[in-house]
Amino acid sequence: MFDQLCIVGVGLIGGSVARAARAKNLCRNIIGVGRSEASLQRAVELGVIDEWTLSIEEAVRKSDLVILCTPVGSFQSLFELMKPVWRSDAIYTDVGSTKLSVVQAIQAVFGEVPANFVPAHPIAGSENNGVDASTVTLFQNRRVILTPTDTTSEDRLRACVAFWKSMDAEVSVMTVDHHDTVLAATSHLPHVLAFALVEMLRSKDDEQEIFKYAAGGFRDFTRIASSDPTMWADICMANAGQILSLLREFKLSMDVVSDCLDQADRTRLLAFFEDAKAARQQYLNVLN
Amino acid sequence: MFDQLCIVGVGLIGGSVARAARAKNLCRNIIGVGRSEASLQRAVELGVIDEWTLSIEEAVRKSDLVILCTPVGSFQSLFELMKPVWRSDAIYTDVGSTKLSVVQAIQAVFGEVPANFVPAHPIAGSENNGVDASTVTLFQNRRVILTPTDTTSEDRLRACVAFWKSMDAEVSVMTVDHHDTVLAATSHLPHVLAFALVEMLRSKDDEQEIFKYAAGGFRDFTRIASSDPTMWADICMANAGQILSLLREFKLSMDVVSDCLDQADRTRLLAFFEDAKAARQQYLNVLN
Repeated sequence: MFDQLCIVGVGLIGGSVARAARAKNLCRNIIGVGRSEASLQRAVELGVIDEWTLSIEEAVRKSDLVILCTPVGSFQSLFELMKPVWRSDAIYTDVGSTKLSVVQAIQAVFGEVPANFVPAHPIAGSENNGVDASTVTLFQNRRVILTPTDTTSEDRLRACVAFWKSMDAEVSVMTVDHHDTVLAATSHLPHVLAFALVEMLRSKDDEQEIFKYAAGGFRDFTRIASSDPTMWADICMANAGQILSLLREFKLSMDVVSDCLDQADRTRLLAFFEDAKAARQQYLNVLN
Repeated sequence: MFDQLCIVGVGLIGGSVARAARAKNLCRNIIGVGRSEASLQRAVELGVIDEWTLSIEEAVRKSDLVILCTPVGSFQSLFELMKPVWRSDAIYTDVGSTKLSVVQAIQAVFGEVPANFVPAHPIAGSENNGVDASTVTLFQNRRVILTPTDTTSEDRLRACVAFWKSMDAEVSVMTVDHHDTVLAATSHLPHVLAFALVEMLRSKDDEQEIFKYAAGGFRDFTRIASSDPTMWADICMANAGQILSLLREFKLSMDVVSDCLDQADRTRLLAFFEDAKAARQQYLNVLN
């Protein structure tokens, strides 16, 4: 059990970590850090955190578990502020959706990845933002990926594995690169495509008509385009190389469809769709 | 009230039309036409249809409302079979997802669009297929678009409007071209993108890993890639021109993201994502 859990950024994810940590009795006290007094006060009213401060230094100084839950673009400046009060007996971790950028940010500040920093990524979220959207069950049966580096302490890694498992998450450990490759394909690319599709339709003359007649598939397909733009701009910048490469591959896949349509090749198009459906079915089987 | 409703293709959509028509007392008897005896027999067992035949001529001869619910690629050969038994006192309609191709198919057979054929498209569906997936409520509060041509009888159009309204659908009337433009953007393109994404990931080395760690957004985003490949190959072929043009436009939208990533232009990327989120929010407001 941790004495003092510090949540930096008490929004959907940070708030949900706090709620679950409290419910599972993983810490004695929870302090929230943020930039908006109103939102931190709201988190206290909701019972998500016990107290708050605008000073990350103050909070870090007295906490034995610190979890960064802000957009990854903010991490380097947060590490700068944390460095003077960094405790060797504490554990530091994060929930960022990209991991190479996080490792690079902390290396830039500390010269190396401190042994007590454990990069982490719970694969859970919602298109709703803010502490009001946080839930105690957000991580139940969801995957959490930990990406230790060569310098990460085995003890601290084990403590983080135990922390997330206590919240009923399924914990995996993999390398930073592998994480960023897999997530680029399954999360970052779909988000980019959803944003790009809605943005393309927005600029059309009959936008209103288009949205009016949009079917259920369209609603699901574009749901993730309602995700937080700041968070996603950060994620895309942080994993730009992988996403660029996938965008190129995806264009080639689209080109197969275009060629089929152009050449009225129904047979090839049908095979393409059948293969895709079979692959998705396999994906559902893996999940179940 | 119709005396004899004929459903050609008793699957998800055809079965749901039959169930709703019966529930709302819109016909006295329902005959199903198909190619699979087992599936038609199943539809009788489920109480979806009263009787069935493998002969469309036999069914059409004795029906005063005939609804084509097979993939649009089959329509022209069905019209050929129906022409000798076509009744001037009956109403003929369909549920095809493209409308120009349907109008062209019937023109090719009859020389013009018969006055008692009313092209229709209920915007409802599911990634599940077959009569077992059919429900009595599939069209409730869903949009149904009717696309009469210059030769369509006003009376028959009104009868079709009333038929769908009785099933609690929201009926709109628009031109064939307008329908195909709007649906290409809101339905056909998203389906093509979902198939293309899953197909692209399928060919990657770490396919299993990718599917294993896929998050909820990916599941929603690719749900429509589990749709019926035959139906979608037909739809894409039938509306190839519109879809090709949208694929080109979508690539330009993707290129904006690629440029932002390439040039590390976070400001422009954030604005792009913010615009998309705002547009989707507006779409949700239109729906609600």
